[in-house]
Amino acid sequence: MNEFSIIDRFAANLPRPAAQHNALHESDCELLDLPSGDVTLAITTDDLVEELALGFYPDPYTIGWVALTASLSDLAAVSADPLAALVSLGIHPGLEADFLDGVASGIADVCRANGIGIAGGDTNATPEFRIGCTAVGTLPRGAALTRRGCRPGDRVYVTGPLGTGALAALGRSAGGSLPTPAFRPVARLREGRSLRGVASACIDTSDGALDALGRLARLNGVGFDVDVAGCFDPSALAPLEARGLPGWLLLASLHGEFELLFTVPPGLVGALGRVSGAAGWRPIALGTVTGRPGIRIDPGTDVPPFVLDPLAVRALFEGYDGDLESLIAGLLALVRS
Amino acid sequence: MNEFSIIDRFAANLPRPAAQHNALHESDCELLDLPSGDVTLAITTDDLVEELALGFYPDPYTIGWVALTASLSDLAAVSADPLAALVSLGIHPGLEADFLDGVASGIADVCRANGIGIAGGDTNATPEFRIGCTAVGTLPRGAALTRRGCRPGDRVYVTGPLGTGALAALGRSAGGSLPTPAFRPVARLREGRSLRGVASACIDTSDGALDALGRLARLNGVGFDVDVAGCFDPSALAPLEARGLPGWLLLASLHGEFELLFTVPPGLVGALGRVSGAAGWRPIALGTVTGRPGIRIDPGTDVPPFVLDPLAVRALFEGYDGDLESLIAGLLALVRS
Repeated sequence: MNEFSIIDRFAANLPRPAAQHNALHESDCELLDLPSGDVTLAITTDDLVEELALGFYPDPYTIGWVALTASLSDLAAVSADPLAALVSLGIHPGLEADFLDGVASGIADVCRANGIGIAGGDTNATPEFRIGCTAVGTLPRGAALTRRGCRPGDRVYVTGPLGTGALAALGRSAGGSLPTPAFRPVARLREGRSLRGVASACIDTSDGALDALGRLARLNGVGFDVDVAGCFDPSALAPLEARGLPGWLLLASLHGEFELLFTVPPGLVGALGRVSGAAGWRPIALGTVTGRPGIRIDPGTDVPPFVLDPLAVRALFEGYDGDLESLIAGLLALVRS
Repeated sequence: MNEFSIIDRFAANLPRPAAQHNALHESDCELLDLPSGDVTLAITTDDLVEELALGFYPDPYTIGWVALTASLSDLAAVSADPLAALVSLGIHPGLEADFLDGVASGIADVCRANGIGIAGGDTNATPEFRIGCTAVGTLPRGAALTRRGCRPGDRVYVTGPLGTGALAALGRSAGGSLPTPAFRPVARLREGRSLRGVASACIDTSDGALDALGRLARLNGVGFDVDVAGCFDPSALAPLEARGLPGWLLLASLHGEFELLFTVPPGLVGALGRVSGAAGWRPIALGTVTGRPGIRIDPGTDVPPFVLDPLAVRALFEGYDGDLESLIAGLLALVRS
């Protein structure tokens, strides 16, 4: 069984809360109406597991930074106002105090940048270091963005350039054969809030942009025409181009940038320009929602609708020895299977 | 560093949420005022780690049951109305589907018994099975119970008999030399809600009753006179008595019963009788809050104020080979150190 069939089977046995808006897989956060008032609660929990096991982050500060950013990014994707976060730690007596100080420092800087705090968490004795974050936020009832709602003709955007998170994963896995700049992703909370009433669907690119497109395609019964020109961070694209590799590989990594990938109906494109300008950010056009199944990446490739199985992608990265050509072949085989 | 000094050092570097009521260690849940309305959010997260590593639970159903009950019990201890829970899983390809079905079945039965649902969670690939639950609830602003507030003269109660959780841990660690009945703890949500405005402090006994008393003692600058007569489940006490062992050992295990241990000012003892009777449960008297430091267990022992360090208690249980007398000596040394 892959991860999705395991989740589906596990969840099929469980009652869901009466107060919940979203069905399984439909949202980056769980959305729950509070019993009184007009408030919807957004809650998400995320353990950093594969990323640590595969050594994607070079230092404890980055580990703390990304651990909290990953959960705040889920709040951003539903357009929530963040309230607080919890941190779960697994520690052991051999762990150096400097290591934990570094993790805390990364978390604290993300807190300060986003005006939130850590309310608490849980600590356990584990043979290897573990970290996970739970984030909770609020929004007016009915205002949440979900992964559902895009239709053919909608325009597709991202909140920032893609590629740095993908390169962090590719480069660390390649054992230094690809240079990897410092990875300091930003949870797009301000951008997410400005998309209320404008975006028809929204998801973050935590598992890569291609995975995000595949989830939207499956959930909404649509396809995508993607134009990668102008969507990549030049510092992420350059190392690939220097080796003659296609840019779209940066969409298909196990790891993404925590940008928001969102769709906007044609009639609201003008509104998007106004709300993003007022909030001080600039959407990057990524393509169009189509009625034809498949994700056409131009220039590059054409893939059928899919959801990348993280377990399968992880297996690819675990077996990866720096041979990028064979990794590409493996990723292509995965998205085509 | 022990677990508490690690948590304190880690937390010292982190901003806390402006909306939070409780300070570190002061509550079983984190308590956050929502920006609009008169609602306080209660949130708690708990990973089942030591319990799984030490094999306290004999089957996947019990694992799922206890994983969710542990988090709901934290909601109960602050008197919250449960809203929903999230489940975090660590799975691997070698895990049998029957195992996961058993875990889900235990979770589902606890959901149904408490009228809640599972909103979502997180799944990762891990070398060993992992499970943790996050629970979220609400209560009227200002109504939350915390671990702070008891004063000398207050009466001490528990919501149900003690000993079965302690015996589950002692018995499994003893490799079958102590019989261990099925362990199906109940989150005391109904009891917790009825204690609003009546209890002066409340904590659950998830880490054992002695640990709970030690935390209350340290936080409130008080001591306790405890009378264990009548507080134990007879089925948990009998195996110890058959071996000539003291009953108070059941208070000092690594593991407890998820009962609420709470204090009531003398003037509200009558009110406790009314609210508990109306809600259909009966408090069990456990003793009195004193102004003198120390926890006097009668009959049995007299221990100074302390908090049992779970890492140290775990180390005792890891080295435990069925020799209960040496385990007792070790526990006594811990609480006296």
